[in-house]
Amino acid sequence: MSKELTIDQKSIWEDARAMLAKAEREGIETVWDREENQTPHCTFCETGVSCRNCTMGPCRINPNPNSKMKLGVCGANVDTIVARNFARFVAGGSSSHSDHGRDLINTLNAIADGDAPGYKIKDEAKLRAVAAELGVHDAEHGELFKVAKEVADVCYEQFGSKLDHLKFAERAPKARQELWESLKMMPRGIDREVVEMMHRTHMGCDNDPISLLIQAARTALADGWGGSMIGTELSDAIFGTPSPRTSEVDLAVLKADCVNIMVHGHNPVVSEMVLAAAREPKMIEKAKAVGATGGINVVGLCCTGNELMMRQGIPMAGNHLMTELALITGAVEAIVVDYQCIMPSLTHIAACYQTQFISTSAKGRFPGEIHMEVNPQNAQEICHKIVEMAIEAFTKRDPNRVEIPSAPVSIMTGFSNEAILGALGGTPEPLLDAIKAGKIKGAVGVVGCNNPRIQHDSHTVAILKELIAKGMLVLVTGCVTNAAGKAGLLVPEAAKMAAPGLREVCEALGIPPVLHVGSCVDNSRIMSLCAALANALGVDISDLPVAASAPEWYSEKAAAIGLYAVASGIPVHLGVVPHITGSPAVVEVATNGLNDVVGAAFIVEPDPVVAAEKIEAVIDVRRAKLGI
Amino acid sequence: MSKELTIDQKSIWEDARAMLAKAEREGIETVWDREENQTPHCTFCETGVSCRNCTMGPCRINPNPNSKMKLGVCGANVDTIVARNFARFVAGGSSSHSDHGRDLINTLNAIADGDAPGYKIKDEAKLRAVAAELGVHDAEHGELFKVAKEVADVCYEQFGSKLDHLKFAERAPKARQELWESLKMMPRGIDREVVEMMHRTHMGCDNDPISLLIQAARTALADGWGGSMIGTELSDAIFGTPSPRTSEVDLAVLKADCVNIMVHGHNPVVSEMVLAAAREPKMIEKAKAVGATGGINVVGLCCTGNELMMRQGIPMAGNHLMTELALITGAVEAIVVDYQCIMPSLTHIAACYQTQFISTSAKGRFPGEIHMEVNPQNAQEICHKIVEMAIEAFTKRDPNRVEIPSAPVSIMTGFSNEAILGALGGTPEPLLDAIKAGKIKGAVGVVGCNNPRIQHDSHTVAILKELIAKGMLVLVTGCVTNAAGKAGLLVPEAAKMAAPGLREVCEALGIPPVLHVGSCVDNSRIMSLCAALANALGVDISDLPVAASAPEWYSEKAAAIGLYAVASGIPVHLGVVPHITGSPAVVEVATNGLNDVVGAAFIVEPDPVVAAEKIEAVIDVRRAKLGI
Repeated sequence: MSKELTIDQKSIWEDARAMLAKAEREGIETVWDREENQTPHCTFCETGVSCRNCTMGPCRINPNPNSKMKLGVCGANVDTIVARNFARFVAGGSSSHSDHGRDLINTLNAIADGDAPGYKIKDEAKLRAVAAELGVHDAEHGELFKVAKEVADVCYEQFGSKLDHLKFAERAPKARQELWESLKMMPRGIDREVVEMMHRTHMGCDNDPISLLIQAARTALADGWGGSMIGTELSDAIFGTPSPRTSEVDLAVLKADCVNIMVHGHNPVVSEMVLAAAREPKMIEKAKAVGATGGINVVGLCCTGNELMMRQGIPMAGNHLMTELALITGAVEAIVVDYQCIMPSLTHIAACYQTQFISTSAKGRFPGEIHMEVNPQNAQEICHKIVEMAIEAFTKRDPNRVEIPSAPVSIMTGFSNEAILGALGGTPEPLLDAIKAGKIKGAVGVVGCNNPRIQHDSHTVAILKELIAKGMLVLVTGCVTNAAGKAGLLVPEAAKMAAPGLREVCEALGIPPVLHVGSCVDNSRIMSLCAALANALGVDISDLPVAASAPEWYSEKAAAIGLYAVASGIPVHLGVVPHITGSPAVVEVATNGLNDVVGAAFIVEPDPVVAAEKIEAVIDVRRAKLGI
Repeated sequence: MSKELTIDQKSIWEDARAMLAKAEREGIETVWDREENQTPHCTFCETGVSCRNCTMGPCRINPNPNSKMKLGVCGANVDTIVARNFARFVAGGSSSHSDHGRDLINTLNAIADGDAPGYKIKDEAKLRAVAAELGVHDAEHGELFKVAKEVADVCYEQFGSKLDHLKFAERAPKARQELWESLKMMPRGIDREVVEMMHRTHMGCDNDPISLLIQAARTALADGWGGSMIGTELSDAIFGTPSPRTSEVDLAVLKADCVNIMVHGHNPVVSEMVLAAAREPKMIEKAKAVGATGGINVVGLCCTGNELMMRQGIPMAGNHLMTELALITGAVEAIVVDYQCIMPSLTHIAACYQTQFISTSAKGRFPGEIHMEVNPQNAQEICHKIVEMAIEAFTKRDPNRVEIPSAPVSIMTGFSNEAILGALGGTPEPLLDAIKAGKIKGAVGVVGCNNPRIQHDSHTVAILKELIAKGMLVLVTGCVTNAAGKAGLLVPEAAKMAAPGLREVCEALGIPPVLHVGSCVDNSRIMSLCAALANALGVDISDLPVAASAPEWYSEKAAAIGLYAVASGIPVHLGVVPHITGSPAVVEVATNGLNDVVGAAFIVEPDPVVAAEKIEAVIDVRRAKLGI
């Protein structure tokens, strides 16, 4: 973006614009300023053609025919370099989700050991269902903690070296499993795939872009059908499987008369316990005693916000590009973070106010933080302290610097697969019938982040509106949740904006045309749902009239999600171009060649309206092939 | 290096220079040409200040005070970015060694299952000793394959998620183990540490350079006391623990009258089976039948060459920068590769001759390859085919293009720890006595690679000579082996070049002052030996008069090795500057601050003579502290 961007060009939202104006007044730097300072970006790194995987380099390939930089020092060509870089990018994403999943296993394990005060297995039925699926002995009737311990053990094994396939991959249609096997794309141990990916991208190992991309897909599948799926399923067992409920979004969910505690990051193990502490009457009394007449207000940011919203109806203050702006309200007493997508700039902004920036994970450290490490054993105790620190910070709030803009927007949330199937009467048949009848044209997952290269939320909202107008049922996760919510799309009344058939279905069921299904690890719910639909129809996922879109993505995790979706047979639109354009061969494979291999490919398209048309075209082809 | 480099400036060796001249005559590009084409390197990547871990970037930090590029788009500062990049660099190295170790477990497991024709457990005593150490039931007397199966199981577990520390880390002195625990540097599962490292370096996770470097050290220790150590120990059990023997180095080990088969890469699972097939009388007869009167000549390159040399006395044709030049002799019928450090340029050069470039691992793929995947089940069969292809290729050799330069140089090899302790009468006491008496001033591991930025092998040879002249007993691995061998340092007669005390010890034992201890995974032998010496003295490794040096390193693996050595308490000299100079804070920690944390640090020094002086100074301090 250029230097001359106006505030209105930065974001489409009133709350964001108000805070951008306040930031200017108060001289606070935001992500948009830094984006401008980093422009122009280095073309070599941006197109993926630079390699620094050894100290014979760094090297870079220059496409100019007159350049002497045609090969890396080792002899690697541009296709190898681009594929290696993208593969490591995906490995970073897959690692992040999967390591998050591991923390849920650690928590379940500690609960089973009786070593996690304050945590419990809230959804026993879910735990037993997962246990049965994982082959745990006496899953249905065994002593609960014994079953939990065995579930934890089987889940730990999914990260190991001895498996030939991940247990949850068995959810996929048989044809898909066989395809993965035949392509050597079937994920074995989760960690193993990441480590093999890192190994293959060492100098002098895998130099074949196709082979690299296949292992990258295996690494991504280990996330989608492994680490993330474990994260989702165990979070449901521990904290409850989400069911439909209402909540609110917008910065306006902050309350001037409350101690505002903001949770940010991804891991519900932390945010659930912060919430539990904040709900205790004695804590609320303490807050009132220091003048917070409204008590304590816990609100979410980013994916841990999605987790609390899905299960507890806790409101969300914002998504990725709102995280800095949320602090600029001056109304936040504490921002409690765990890991992933937490801009290190937040400590600087927190320091401008009374805001306590509290980090809780050894994996998420920030210069300027207050570090209070949370684990299943001490979470209850530490989270009490955190809430007390927030209450104390309220006494330092400067009311003259508080500005809470706009107004909260209502939303409906909690659409776990169990809830969706429940609403349909327990089977996917009514949904499939609506799809067959053409009332619903297809289903599209719209997921991912924000990116300051795109006017905040503009493309996401545009594509959401286009898709429902075309009769697509949309599922959203992660940062898309806020965009959809603020645009008024997460309420049943939004059915009016949908195509007639979709509107009819939504109105009959009393649901919005855009369903909130969770956080970014919860994209695994979409995988499970697609698998269930394909199995019910007796087809492969690549036959379903489904697609996905990440209009404003920025992170390595989003790349992993995109790749596991494609490798599962779901076409994926990317609104931001990945760092692969330096290799026409890799671009060709990603955007076309993969169709012949896994029955889906990436659609790279910056224009959201055109993207919606391309998604529709792919779905039309699939409908035609199915004869519906 | 500059464009005007003469052949003599590229390498110090006669064989290399002859082949560089032949390459020029025949119009073949080598690594030196590409290095020149890539010069000047990008300063941002070279100093580690560019970040491409998300698509808000790529970003780069410009140290110029007038530059606007002061922070990444997310807010990461230069210290965070440099530390993150270095951490991922180390993770790449640790992954490579560890995934190699995993392949040895797979092989042992297949042997135990009776599913690995041609492989056996050659050193039963070593297997049982390792089994006992790993806590395997009835290790001493149990049925061999049952013990082997249990060893494989325990080794697989070392890669998992449930451990609080690696089993082999118990070899380290108690004080060192306690230090690792207190610093959260104790490696848990090998794969887990890599995945956590990748997670922490995702945007919005670990932004603290110290925390990042500690996790990088933990990831490296998971290599040195985990993946690599498993690789070494199981290779010994399967293929035999090395014992002293003689061999030869130099391109001159190729033979004009033989079918020359070159093994390149790292995994003895492949090279041992190629050797076994090549030694069969019927194969030798076939070779003679096509005119190769000398039969079949298997020679090694790189670390799989080190493996065969240590255990079988197979000669080595060269190290990293000799790999291309070896093919340029025109005398190589087949180059059989597995993974790591295999320049992708080799397929281009092989195509200029009769040379068959045969890749054998899914993890090592090369455009232009012949791919014949080897696994424990099919290795015997495939390796027979490979040898037959080499014999067939001999018929296409053009004698007019064959040039085998110089003459072979004799060396002594096979100094496993068992062999060293055996030579000392079974205990380290005589060695410790010689050190206490000052006859041996200290022990230095000189390890690592080549790098075209440095005149080939010049710094390695210089530092080796300096060190023995100062009375240091030197242990070498990997690519240093060839340099030491060609310089005449790997024979007992080299004792003449050593300081008087060291000379006396070497002459008494009949050993060289520079001992060849193996391949790059075998740097784990040096860790085990240091642990044994420290335990015998009742001190920590950081108290020992020891050091390490990587004068010409290039790879991510070398960075992992360097870091695990430092984290184990061994000062490490690096002759090539890592990509960290963009952060003075990271440089300060690496070269100084670590001393206060782990009792050792990096010595970055391009001049080999000065480096030897600095190493001596560190060892002098340690001697003084010990009062010897």
